[in-house]
Formats: sequence, structure tokens, C-alpha cells
Amino acid sequence: MNALNHAWNTAFWGHTFYEWDEIVVPNALSEERERGETDNQGISLDYRRFMSDQLLACYYKEYEAIKTYTPNLPVTTNFMGTYEGIDYFQWAPYLDVVSWDNYPGMETPPSETAMTHDLMRGLKQGQPFMLMEQTPSQQNWQPYNSLKRPGVMRMWSYQAVAHGADTVQFFQLRRSPGATEKFHGAVIEHAGHEHTRVFRESAALGEELQKLGDVLTDSTSRARAAILYDWETRWAAELSSGPSVEIDYVQEVHAYYRAFFDQHIPVDIVHPEQDWSGYDIVIAPMMYMVKEAWAKRVESFTAQGGTFVTTYFSGVADESDRVHLGGYPGPLRKVLGIWVEEIDALPPAYTNTAAVTLPVGQLKGAYECRYLFDLLHSEGAEVVAVYENDFYAGMPVITKNQFGKGEAWYIASHMESQALHDLIATITEGKNISPLVPWASEGVEAAERVKNGEQYLFLLNHSRVPAQAELNGRYTDLLTDELLAFHCNLEKNDARILRKEHKE
Amino acid sequence: MNALNHAWNTAFWGHTFYEWDEIVVPNALSEERERGETDNQGISLDYRRFMSDQLLACYYKEYEAIKTYTPNLPVTTNFMGTYEGIDYFQWAPYLDVVSWDNYPGMETPPSETAMTHDLMRGLKQGQPFMLMEQTPSQQNWQPYNSLKRPGVMRMWSYQAVAHGADTVQFFQLRRSPGATEKFHGAVIEHAGHEHTRVFRESAALGEELQKLGDVLTDSTSRARAAILYDWETRWAAELSSGPSVEIDYVQEVHAYYRAFFDQHIPVDIVHPEQDWSGYDIVIAPMMYMVKEAWAKRVESFTAQGGTFVTTYFSGVADESDRVHLGGYPGPLRKVLGIWVEEIDALPPAYTNTAAVTLPVGQLKGAYECRYLFDLLHSEGAEVVAVYENDFYAGMPVITKNQFGKGEAWYIASHMESQALHDLIATITEGKNISPLVPWASEGVEAAERVKNGEQYLFLLNHSRVPAQAELNGRYTDLLTDELLAFHCNLEKNDARILRKEHKE
Amino acid sequence: MNALNHAWNTAFWGHTFYEWDEIVVPNALSEERERGETDNQGISLDYRRFMSDQLLACYYKEYEAIKTYTPNLPVTTNFMGTYEGIDYFQWAPYLDVVSWDNYPGMETPPSETAMTHDLMRGLKQGQPFMLMEQTPSQQNWQPYNSLKRPGVMRMWSYQAVAHGADTVQFFQLRRSPGATEKFHGAVIEHAGHEHTRVFRESAALGEELQKLGDVLTDSTSRARAAILYDWETRWAAELSSGPSVEIDYVQEVHAYYRAFFDQHIPVDIVHPEQDWSGYDIVIAPMMYMVKEAWAKRVESFTAQGGTFVTTYFSGVADESDRVHLGGYPGPLRKVLGIWVEEIDALPPAYTNTAAVTLPVGQLKGAYECRYLFDLLHSEGAEVVAVYENDFYAGMPVITKNQFGKGEAWYIASHMESQALHDLIATITEGKNISPLVPWASEGVEAAERVKNGEQYLFLLNHSRVPAQAELNGRYTDLLTDELLAFHCNLEKNDARILRKEHKE
Repeated sequence: MNALNHAWNTAFWGHTFYEWDEIVVPNALSEERERGETDNQGISLDYRRFMSDQLLACYYKEYEAIKTYTPNLPVTTNFMGTYEGIDYFQWAPYLDVVSWDNYPGMETPPSETAMTHDLMRGLKQGQPFMLMEQTPSQQNWQPYNSLKRPGVMRMWSYQAVAHGADTVQFFQLRRSPGATEKFHGAVIEHAGHEHTRVFRESAALGEELQKLGDVLTDSTSRARAAILYDWETRWAAELSSGPSVEIDYVQEVHAYYRAFFDQHIPVDIVHPEQDWSGYDIVIAPMMYMVKEAWAKRVESFTAQGGTFVTTYFSGVADESDRVHLGGYPGPLRKVLGIWVEEIDALPPAYTNTAAVTLPVGQLKGAYECRYLFDLLHSEGAEVVAVYENDFYAGMPVITKNQFGKGEAWYIASHMESQALHDLIATITEGKNISPLVPWASEGVEAAERVKNGEQYLFLLNHSRVPAQAELNGRYTDLLTDELLAFHCNLEKNDARILRKEHKE
Repeated sequence: MNALNHAWNTAFWGHTFYEWDEIVVPNALSEERERGETDNQGISLDYRRFMSDQLLACYYKEYEAIKTYTPNLPVTTNFMGTYEGIDYFQWAPYLDVVSWDNYPGMETPPSETAMTHDLMRGLKQGQPFMLMEQTPSQQNWQPYNSLKRPGVMRMWSYQAVAHGADTVQFFQLRRSPGATEKFHGAVIEHAGHEHTRVFRESAALGEELQKLGDVLTDSTSRARAAILYDWETRWAAELSSGPSVEIDYVQEVHAYYRAFFDQHIPVDIVHPEQDWSGYDIVIAPMMYMVKEAWAKRVESFTAQGGTFVTTYFSGVADESDRVHLGGYPGPLRKVLGIWVEEIDALPPAYTNTAAVTLPVGQLKGAYECRYLFDLLHSEGAEVVAVYENDFYAGMPVITKNQFGKGEAWYIASHMESQALHDLIATITEGKNISPLVPWASEGVEAAERVKNGEQYLFLLNHSRVPAQAELNGRYTDLLTDELLAFHCNLEKNDARILRKEHKE
Repeated sequence: MNALNHAWNTAFWGHTFYEWDEIVVPNALSEERERGETDNQGISLDYRRFMSDQLLACYYKEYEAIKTYTPNLPVTTNFMGTYEGIDYFQWAPYLDVVSWDNYPGMETPPSETAMTHDLMRGLKQGQPFMLMEQTPSQQNWQPYNSLKRPGVMRMWSYQAVAHGADTVQFFQLRRSPGATEKFHGAVIEHAGHEHTRVFRESAALGEELQKLGDVLTDSTSRARAAILYDWETRWAAELSSGPSVEIDYVQEVHAYYRAFFDQHIPVDIVHPEQDWSGYDIVIAPMMYMVKEAWAKRVESFTAQGGTFVTTYFSGVADESDRVHLGGYPGPLRKVLGIWVEEIDALPPAYTNTAAVTLPVGQLKGAYECRYLFDLLHSEGAEVVAVYENDFYAGMPVITKNQFGKGEAWYIASHMESQALHDLIATITEGKNISPLVPWASEGVEAAERVKNGEQYLFLLNHSRVPAQAELNGRYTDLLTDELLAFHCNLEKNDARILRKEHKE
């Protein structure tokens, strides 16, 4: 009981527990007024762990029941991407294969969908997954349920494959006549026959996939960079009361992911406790929670030559959401070579400027930053950029610390996307990581799968105009058998799968 | 029980009922989370019917009790216009006379008030109604309770009369000293005497009405066009999950009503099950629900020479909110000569253009449309206008189908008001329906009542500047006895009642 | 029971009580649906009184228990400024000293903080209070918890002292490691040592305060103007249903307070039942509730030569929120020499203009007004300004009534700040009340405490640039011992305490 009172810091506001019976599920008694709005972060955080574990136990009962009768059939359940309520990394070992439901909205950035696919692939450390559900045309539960434009369903299906899906499935075969999802798209519309745009597009995709056969199944990827993602960290960071309501774990991860995506550089998404020692670069956006072992991994990774990047609101708390006393970012302070004295939080309309004082790679000039602003001191780290405004003008905002054979970067504020673009360009160039394509029109996504020594390059044109990409050599289009030399054209919303030719 | 499970499509999400006891009022168990937000439309729809019926039964107990003692006194209860919760068409037969409370806000369009009066008149198929409540000056429950400007109370009183009211009453005689409505206007203000603007205006109106005597009472109207209005259809359409949150039954009805109103053409509001065979034109905006018998009525009406108009999100579902399978708009498909393959839904900022390819009457040029966009195919209907943008550019958006001796129009999107203006002008001209006045300044409303062979023309100036109207001949002003020949002046917020002279 | 039914006007909507047991705490049964949104103002108002009294009784039990053992130690509890839920004027007699928690946000106007200090000082009629809590750097519970900029904590501490604080305290000494306030600022940061900006600023302030010693403790102020403030009036005004959602008691008080503040004229805040006969000027903004005795005090105060000012939405109701029948502003009608016939309420975008027709003092030209617009008649009062627009153009909007030896002003709408500035200038000049400083840069606040015949002038520079002030003679800076003659410079966010020299 003492351990519990310590972990939850119950002395605050007189919440000391004396009997186990006094503990409640989060409600007004535990100071969690509305879901996510709590004054006792410790109990609210542990409740999220508890719920995820309990649901997993329920799931596993079903898993075992099924295995009793059909031990050879793989068992899975529908995941939902970055869904907040369940720690999918804890669940993944109990699924034979990961499967998930992909429902991007009309204006979801393609990079966000790509990131979510990569997260799903990362749950079982790169093992291919199933695209369990997608709509062939529209949803019913969004405010405005737009139709997928012609070609978009095909393109998004291949986007899933490009990021590791070994199946392409739909919800649903046939629209139901009643109840809430009757306006959810289906392969067979309410009209009941096959003479529809949606059916034709679905059938055409089926024919293409049949033509592809199993050439891609079981193929994998080989990214040299990784981004850390962790549900516990998200829970703790977002349960925080202060410093700012703008704290958004998934969007901060996405901001860094997008910098890779836009430069056609593959990146894996891994959990802090998976093995990520083999990567050249590891990014840990908003690594608010740092367990002791995680900090040791960061130090070891960096000391051995890795490039580590983390941001504001990192290294703050331990696994019970107790602050690492002694100065932020706690156990990451040594590897980063900095000390954060204060954290300023300003409304979104207030911005500061990060002026680069030590140009390195593509980082130069000045970048806008906002939301949170660490007031930090270098304790050995090189100062790459400083604040230009406010009373902390001149204090570091981007730092780089040599640590053993590697280097550790700290980004002390929420940076505009150009800053992250230039940062990622700089550190990937430093590791001689090349993009999958030398150049492509805006809106073109590149991804790669490999199998049996073959490289399969996916090019997807998310824009609504034709596009081009330059290629690193000669490729064969798997669907058209066309031979492409150093150049590829893409129709609007096109998706092409190219096999690299071994001889230039 | 099988019938119930079928009607509510309970197989969806495993809601099959096995015992009657399992049925609950709409709540989280029935998947209705908040009022109107449900995942089981069937049970939510039937609950609305049930509630309306139960309240009617309560009302009727009181009705019978009163009749026991005063069998000759008419009995009524206060209706509230387009109030969502009660199906007034079901109630109307149990009232001796319809009465209602008219509380337009400061910025309510006059056409909306007029439409609501016409709806109240339509409840008993044209029988005059009572204006049971209106405030002489201001309300208390709006965010900003503006005073009715001088003359507005008089003008709005006559607007009620113009649309069928045989009484003009107020809530309330005297402001109460306490509780919530103490700031609600009254004929006698808190000052307690008659030396107030409000009292003077009320008294002056009383004198006018006394002068008018019963010349207008029991007079009726004689519109040749009708708009269908139905609470069940509204409930079903608005309970829908998808395609768009912009679905607003009352505003879609109002959009079409306003096109008549702005052109000074009277229109009745009728229920699908009332007798509307005698009209020349029938408009059914957003006729989402179509019962079998209703479709037959539409076909019969059109076949016999009527002009029928309906819109997107019509003919979708049956009386249990089960989709008419086989292609939208289900049982209306034949009479409209079209098939709707898909329904696109876009945020309000996204518009398309309806380009008229077959100019007819006043329909020409191009009109803006938004919210929902049917992707439809003509199955015999003439294509009047096509989409100009998006992947369905060139597909029909306005169609007209010859059916028997009549024609049936389909409007496949939410159209800007000019489009509806031109549409209504076209079809009324086609039926030789003339406006009540040849021309009037903007903001002037014209309405008509008839009695014993006399025509009474109401002219109301809703604008805040003086206005004019041209007249179809000679008229006498009932209040001033002025003789008017082909022309009428109106003060700001003026209301005049003119009796047509038989001799030109 | 009859008295209760009368007080609450329960006849309205059939709420007559027959048994005491029928009375409930405010909920749907009493027509209070959400906190503050009620249809039965009487019961909701009395419940607020009841809650404040009950909490006071709880507090007083603790007070007595403490006094049993430590009779000589003063006892207090943390007040929270204008917190809505407790009538601090009722509580104040039961505290030995008033103390309160001052947590202005980043964009709280300095005048609002000053007003709140003055309110706290007024609770015990000018007795110095304790600044019980303030954060040395940031809060955690605001949306954006900005750091106090360098010098701001010091300046705001002296602002408290300037308005009557005899202590300057902090919440909290040390940041806690867990639970909701771990991101709330503290003198000792999570770093755990004293080498921080926040610690240094706190320590420096401590040294200054030590240097000041008790020269200021027990000093008082000597304003000649007062503003009435009353929790019961606020409750009643804000519980009102209508005429406008813009009714905001505290902001209306603040608007008048600010007019004094901006002109460096001290003003006290007093309760209607405290003794305010000695002031030259008394302002009663939005004095919605007027008890019989209060009206008598207003008349007596004015008759004896005082200047009284009140506004729209005053004199409306009695202590049970029953309207004073016979014409607004009820018992204030005679002293004001006016009668309000109607109250118009318009959305904020609608403004009217108050055109000065009888220039007096600095009141001239035209001023914008909004929200509520009284339609009033003079019954003897001079008309200073009239509405320029709408149907009540030409009716009075500012009136001044000679009453006995004094005068009573009525401001019939919510006026722009320039109007209140000119009004306060006019009436203070009329009473020969001089500002504390002849002139100062924008953003400079002046306040005064007096003790043993000495005047202590506080000058605070709330702006972020250096500023100046002219002085009424020679002063000595208490902190620097600098001698200042007729002029004082202020650094950005500076605070200076000047003792007036007796010899010019």
C-alpha cells in the first residue's frame, strides 16, 4: 500500500489510501471528472493499463477457444491504428497476425495513413499484416461521407500493400437494408447488382491482385531509421494537467514521420522495449515517459554510434508519471548534454523563431516554433539554433550532443514542418541513407518491400494531377510488364509496383 | 417478433430480440446515445411514433373530460409549428380547431413564418386556425430578446391572418413579477398601466380587428400548388447516420417554399396521405421515406397530368427505415425515369455547378449546389442540367420525366435559391399559375384568402423602407376604404388587406 | 408557506408548494436544468444563499475548534476573488483577516486584478489582507500556462501590496513529483536547487520586502469614490432568463472600475449594506437587485450631496427576485428622475450611438453602446445624451438628476470605455478629486497607501516598454532611496514605492 501511495503520489490533495477497497475506477472520487480530464494522473494511467490488459484477457479466452478446435488457423482481431484505448504493443504477441481497419477521411494526409500502416507493421516487428477493413466507396459515420474518387480505393489498397499488408479486404460485401451502417459503402450497392462504378473498381483490383499472385506476400522492408511509439507514453503525456492543451502525442510523432515520408525515406515504427539497436537513427518525439531501462537503451544506442533525436516534453516522468526530479529531461539529460530549467507554454497564435547559429547539413536560416518552449542550458551539447524572441532569446532551441560514437539531438519546441524536413535530411545524409527515389513530383509517395533479394518499389500519386518520378536505375512494372529506365510517369491517383532490375 | 426483427434489421450488430421484455426505450442499450444520435434507426423511429401517440392519448383523455361537461365548446391545444417531437398531422383530427404559438426570432425569414402558418392551416386541410400565442414585444428565452419594432407586431398578426388565422391572441396579458418569464413581453408591462407603446399598439390592432369584424373569418385559400410535409419522413431522414450532417428536412422544405413565397404564388402544405390529387403541382422535398401507397399516389397524380418534383435523399427507405433495395429512389424510380447509383457528400465549402444543358422556361445558365450530390443515370428522363465539376461532371443533376399526362422532376443536390426560383417559375408558368401580384418591391409578401366569392389580398411590407406593389385590377382597402387601381403603396412594416373589386 | 410561494412566485407554471417536503435542491424538478440555467429564479437564488451560509457554518466550526486551542492566532481561509459561489461579504466578519489566491492569466487586464484586490480589501472595509497564494512562475490548469515574464512576479506582488496586501506569499514552495499540480510553478523547481531564474526572482523579492520592513504594514487607503459590489445582485442578475445572454455583472463592474483605474483615481469597493455615506461618489453598476433599505440609502446619500451613478438593468427586482412593479428602475426611479418603459436587447454586432446633447464636463460627442438599450423617459432628469439610431432615436441614454444636494446619473446601455472614462472624469472633477499622478505613460498603474500621516505612492509599469510618470511633488523611493522631483522613470515591468516628502 505504501508503494501504491508513493507511485500515485496520493499525499497530494489528501488521497492517501489505507485499504485496497478504497480504490475506485476513475470517476469523480479519483478526481477523473471526464474521460481524460483528471487530477490524479497516476490512478488514471494505471486504469488505462488495467483496461487494456483486461480486454486482452477477454480476447485471449476467445483465442484459446478457437485454437482448441482449429489449432492451425491463424487468429486475429481488428485493430484500429492509433486508437487510444488499447496498447496494441501489449496485444500483438497474442495475435497470430496483425490486422486492422483503415478508414482515412477525405482530408487525412497520406503520410498519416502511411504512418499508421507502419505502426501496424511494427507491432510484430515488421511481420506483414492484413488490411482487414476498408470501404470501397464511403463511410457513414463521418460528418461528410465523401465517395472515394475513381482510382483512390485502388491507390489506397496498394498503399497498404506498400507498407506491409499481405491482404486487401473490404467492409462490406453488401450494404445492409437497415440500421446504422446502411449508408456505409459496400462492394455490392443497394442496387444489388454488379453494374456499378464501385463494383467495377473492386473487381478490377481483384484481377490485378490475382495477376500479382504471391510475388509480394511475405516480403518485408528494411528501413534504417525508426521512430519510437508507445501507448503508455501517450496516455501519460495527454493525461497531464498543463503545461498546454496543445499536447498531442500522435501529431508530434506524425510531424517527424512526415519529414521522412516527404523525402521518400522508409522508417519503421518501434516500441521502446523492442530491439532497436540495429537502426542508424532513432527518433523519440515527445518521449514524456522514460523508464530507467529505456534511458539506458538510449545511452547504449547513441554510444555505439546511433543518432538519437528527442523533443520537448521528453524525459519528464517515470512509469508511474512521477517526475524525474533533479532537472528535465531526467535520465536523458546526460546523453543529450542539456538541462531544461523551465517550460513556457503559449497560445498557438504566439510563435517564436529558431535561428540557426551553427549551420549543419541542411539546417540553416530560421524556423517557426510554437506551443511549448523549453528554456534550456547546454551542458556540453552544441547549440545549433537559438530562440530569437521573448525573454529567452538566445537560449538554445536545437542542440546536438556528441555521446560516445553517436550523437543525440534535442528539439526544444514544436517546430514547423520545414525545420523537421531539414533536420531529417541532415541526419539521414550524415548516415548515408538515400531516398528510395532521387526525385518525385509533389504528392508522390514511395515505399519499398523486399523478398528473396528482389526490391519492389511502390509509387503512389496522391495528387489529382499526373506526376513523375526519377528512378535509381531500371525497373519492371509488375502489372504492365513495362520496362522503365530512370523515369516513371504516374497518372492521377496512380499506383505502380516496380521490380528493380539487377543489371543496370 | 420476426416481423419486429425484420423491421428494425436487428441482425445488424447482433441486436436480435427474442423476448418482448428485451425492448427498451432508446438509450445506450438500443444504441441511441444522445437524443437523435442512434445506431439503430428502426427502434428510434418507432419510439418517436410511440411518444407522439402516447402524448396524443393523454391529450385526448383531457379532451373527452372537457367534452363531457361542455360538449359545445371547441377544444384545442397549443401547437408549436415545426416542433420536431410530435406528429401534428396525427393529432389534428382530435382537435376541434388547430391553434399554435408563433415566436419568430429577430432574424427569422418571413417566408419561414409564412410556411409554418401554412403548415398549421394544412393540418386540417385548409381549415382556419387560431394564432394562440405571440408576444406583443419580446421574448425572454432567446439569446438576445429584441423588441418587436413599431408596426411589426401588427404586421406579423396580419401575416397570421393572411395565412389562415381566424384569431389574433397574445401571450401574455400581464408580465408576471417573478420566475422565468417575467422578462417575456405582455400587453400590460410591469409598469402596470396602459400608457406604453406596447399597449397602444395592441389596442390599435384590436380596434382594427373590431372594424374588420367577421368579414374574413372562415375564409379559405385556393392554392394550386402543394408541398408535402411529413414528421415521419423528417424523423427517419434526420436519424440517419450519414451521408451528411447537413441533412435538414425543414430547411429543405423551406427552400422550396421560399421559391413560391418570393414569387407571390400561394402554396398549401399537405401530408402525403391527405388528398392532394386536385393540385396542379406537388413538391416533395427530401421525401426520404416513401411508403408503398405514397409511391402509387405519386404515379397516379403524375399520370393524370400533375407536375411532381422531388429531390436528392428521396425514395430511399420504407416506413421502417429499411432501404428500398434495387436502386434509389426506390418506388419513385419509374415515375422519375432515373436511377441513382451513388450519393456523394461533401463539406459545405465544396460546391458543384449545375449547368443547364436543356434550357426550359426560366431554367438556364448555371446554379451552385452543395451538401449531397446524387450520381444518377437517366432511364428515360430528359436531362435538364448536369454537374460541371468533379469526377461526375456531365452526369444529370436536374431531370424531367414525362409520365402519362404529367411530368416528374428530380433535383439531385441542394440547390442555391436562384435555381429553385427559376424551377418554380418554370413549372408554375407551365400550369398557367399567376402570382397574386404582377410585381412588388423586395420584402413584400402577398397572400390571399377567399370567402363567398370575394378575394382578399394581403400585402405585407417586411422591409424597413416604404414599398410598392402592382395590382391585378382594382381593390378596396378594408381598413381605410381607399380605392386602389393597379397600384398600392406600403409604409415600412405596413400591412394592408385589399378586397378585389369585381368590375375592372 | 404562503410567504414562500409568494417570494418564489410559484404560481407560475404550477409550482405551488403545499408541504415543506416538496422543496428540492435545484434540479430538473425545480426547473434548474444546468447550473445557472433555471426557470425558477427564486428557488435558485435562495439555494445560492443557503449554500454560502452552510459552507460558512462548516468553516466556522473549524474556526471555533482552532480558537479553542490557539485563541490568539488569527484564522483565515483562502478566498478566490470574484468566485461566484460564495458571498464573501457574508463570510468576512468570521475571518480574522481576509486572505486570497491571485491567479491572473497571461491576458487578464491589470485593472481586473486591481479591482479584485480592492474587493478583497473591501470585505473588511479597508482592513489590509493577505496575498495567500500566487505562483512564482506558471499555473498548470490554464489552457496555456505561460511563464510569468522576468519582473512580472515582483510587479504583481507589489500590485497586491499597493491595494492593501500586508503579506506576499506563494503557492508553492516545491513542485510535487506527481498528481495534477506537478506542472504548477514553485519557488523550488523540479530541479531541486536554487540556481534557477524563479528562485532568484523570489529571493530578490524577499530581500526587498525585508528591507521595506513593516513600514507599510497596517497602512490603509483613502478613496473618495466607491463602487457597490454584491453577490446576491450578481446571482439574481445572472440567473435571469432574458433579456440578453450578455448580462455579465463582474464585467460591468469592471468597466466602471477601469475608468477610475485608467485615470489613477483610487476607488473602494463596498457592499450596499456597508456604510458608504462618507464617500463623495458611489457607482452601482447593474444594481439589478434593490432591497427597500438600499433604495433609502441611495436617496439619503444623494440628498446629502453625493453623486450616485447607476446603469441599465438596475432597480429591477427585490431581494426575492420579484420585479418592483410600477415601472423600472423601481425604488430608484425617484432619485434618478426617470422611467424605463422597455428594454431592448440586441446581438453584440448591433450597436447604437449615444449622442451627447447636453455637454457636461468631458462628456461630449458620441459614444457607442450595445447589448441592452433602455427605452426611458425623463421624469425630471436632465438628458445628457440620446440614442442616435433605431426607433428610439432621440430617447435619453444618459441622464443626470438633481436630487437634494446631490445628483444621480443613469446610464441606460452598456457603454464603450471612452464614455465611462469621460463620465468618471466629469464626476470626479465635479467633486475636486485629483488623480494620484498628473500624468503617466499608458500601462502605468498608480495606487496609494497611507499610514501615520505618510503617503506611499505605488507606480507599476504593466507595459513591456519603459515608462514615465509625472509626480505631484517630491518623493523618496523606498527601495533605492532615490529622491524624485515631479518625475519618475519606470523600467519595463517596474514597480516603485515612493514616500511623499512633506516639504515641496
